[in-house]
Amino acid sequence: MDRARIAIDVEGGDFGAEVIIRGIIDALRSCGSPLSVFLCGDKAEIERILDKENDVDERIRNAINIVHCSERATAHQGWRSRVWKHQRNASIIRCITLQEQGIVDGSVSAGDTAILLGAALFVLGRRKGEARPALAALLPTMKKKPVLLLDVGANLNCRPEHLSAFAFMGLDYLTHMYDAPSPTVALLNVGKEQVKGTAVIGETEKILRKRCAAFAGFVEGNGVLSGDTDIVVCDGFAGNVLLKACESFYQLIESVVRKKPNLITELREQMAVFNSENYGAVPFLGIKGIVLKAHGSSSPRAIESAVLAAERAIRKNASKRVFV
Amino acid sequence: MDRARIAIDVEGGDFGAEVIIRGIIDALRSCGSPLSVFLCGDKAEIERILDKENDVDERIRNAINIVHCSERATAHQGWRSRVWKHQRNASIIRCITLQEQGIVDGSVSAGDTAILLGAALFVLGRRKGEARPALAALLPTMKKKPVLLLDVGANLNCRPEHLSAFAFMGLDYLTHMYDAPSPTVALLNVGKEQVKGTAVIGETEKILRKRCAAFAGFVEGNGVLSGDTDIVVCDGFAGNVLLKACESFYQLIESVVRKKPNLITELREQMAVFNSENYGAVPFLGIKGIVLKAHGSSSPRAIESAVLAAERAIRKNASKRVFV
Repeated sequence: MDRARIAIDVEGGDFGAEVIIRGIIDALRSCGSPLSVFLCGDKAEIERILDKENDVDERIRNAINIVHCSERATAHQGWRSRVWKHQRNASIIRCITLQEQGIVDGSVSAGDTAILLGAALFVLGRRKGEARPALAALLPTMKKKPVLLLDVGANLNCRPEHLSAFAFMGLDYLTHMYDAPSPTVALLNVGKEQVKGTAVIGETEKILRKRCAAFAGFVEGNGVLSGDTDIVVCDGFAGNVLLKACESFYQLIESVVRKKPNLITELREQMAVFNSENYGAVPFLGIKGIVLKAHGSSSPRAIESAVLAAERAIRKNASKRVFV
Repeated sequence: MDRARIAIDVEGGDFGAEVIIRGIIDALRSCGSPLSVFLCGDKAEIERILDKENDVDERIRNAINIVHCSERATAHQGWRSRVWKHQRNASIIRCITLQEQGIVDGSVSAGDTAILLGAALFVLGRRKGEARPALAALLPTMKKKPVLLLDVGANLNCRPEHLSAFAFMGLDYLTHMYDAPSPTVALLNVGKEQVKGTAVIGETEKILRKRCAAFAGFVEGNGVLSGDTDIVVCDGFAGNVLLKACESFYQLIESVVRKKPNLITELREQMAVFNSENYGAVPFLGIKGIVLKAHGSSSPRAIESAVLAAERAIRKNASKRVFV
């Protein structure tokens, strides 16, 4: 592979195109491998912002392509998962169609999850054998290795067959993208005993116990970060709440120890992945394509991380074929 | 009120009666107000443990009553919520019947939530006008005041009328137990916009917007600990995961900074409430009675906190009538 090509929705973030573009420039500066970016949004605005940034040299400018998008995706009415049908020239949709056309290898958006998922699912298609795509986040644990939490927001209501499919998707992803030797998977629940949990959880447990050799039983909210299991499966509501609570906790710790500069530096370093700026974006698994969802409230630093995560996925995918 | 009388299930914890009884002795030592405890469990074992503990002086011993319970609650078959019907002499059920008989003012158990809730609900009854009891946990925030999170595990599946009822229960509880002047309540969701979330969340939002003057809209997982809202309402699955994730995070931080004694002391002090040892037990709201659920894996310190929390609830209730 010559260079990774990434489409980025510059209009999806809560803080506007300026923040997203600043992050993209930082990613182009810090990426060690050749990289091309396709900025999807209002051309005049993108050019105005690029002109204002004073560290856009020739190398950076040559790596940037602008894809003018005349529409704005509106999530306020109708089915968000069908926005792709009617607003194909909105930046969040355009990222995906560029990938469908083979112009880019992966996409990053900080826009609406349901709109992005709808486009990814219906324009790129689902991977063979997968029931539903899921968003997967990698979190640090008390051991040296991270834990993969999925779903973190793509499927708010899940049936047992969806949850059990997430287990296999997670195993596949960890094995191929991170070369994990023999990952284990646990099911998020309110207790460890078999009698605990909802009917959906109970059914899922039965399926996994039967079909999934890597299944390690239930895990509670307080065991997710223990590092005892490599993958934690849950519905998108619980996963989203859990992921965001970790962020919140990080901020709380920062506010507690802000007065001690040494301490906060060390904490920042060691807890870095919980800072949403650093995990930046999470991939959809189960999609035939590389689509990353960044946080709506992404900072330039978060967008930089998101672009670099997409670049890493594209490179890895070129040999391992995780997203085809 | 002369002295608060508390029934305690010494058999409910994951680590056995010894740990629970150690915590009770510590609570009797540290409680500033007169307190009587009723230890429900195997009489011979309780006496053996009390004899072994070398700081049980006459004052402490006089405050302890032993209530022999010959059965063991079994959660492994049938409906856990109906254990109270068939095993009335199991320690977890006996705590509740003692309260029904007016022998104690409140109960604490670290046993199975569904068994405890079934007994509380059917033996003591629900408060007038309440649809379903909920477990409510008080968490620290980035501001000076805490946030009340409910439900944290009593109701894993909730309909909109349950979630909206929790909002009113939480408001009532904070106002009376903690003299909060004008608390606000938010609904946990995966986003802040109206289009976000499940159908149940959407319906709940409509009900609360119409009927609840204190309703402040949606809150995401990363806003729970911000202190911007006083109460966060969610189903028991999401709440349980969120609460336990906070514990987990506390442990993670401890493990990161263990090498620095000063730092960890400061963190311990300021983040103390996230340590499950300190929040110890959470009350059921919506029950005609004071029933606290302690963590299954409670340490003596956690049980001490639980007993003191029950004592506080009993004293406050004597004037404010929150649990009748």
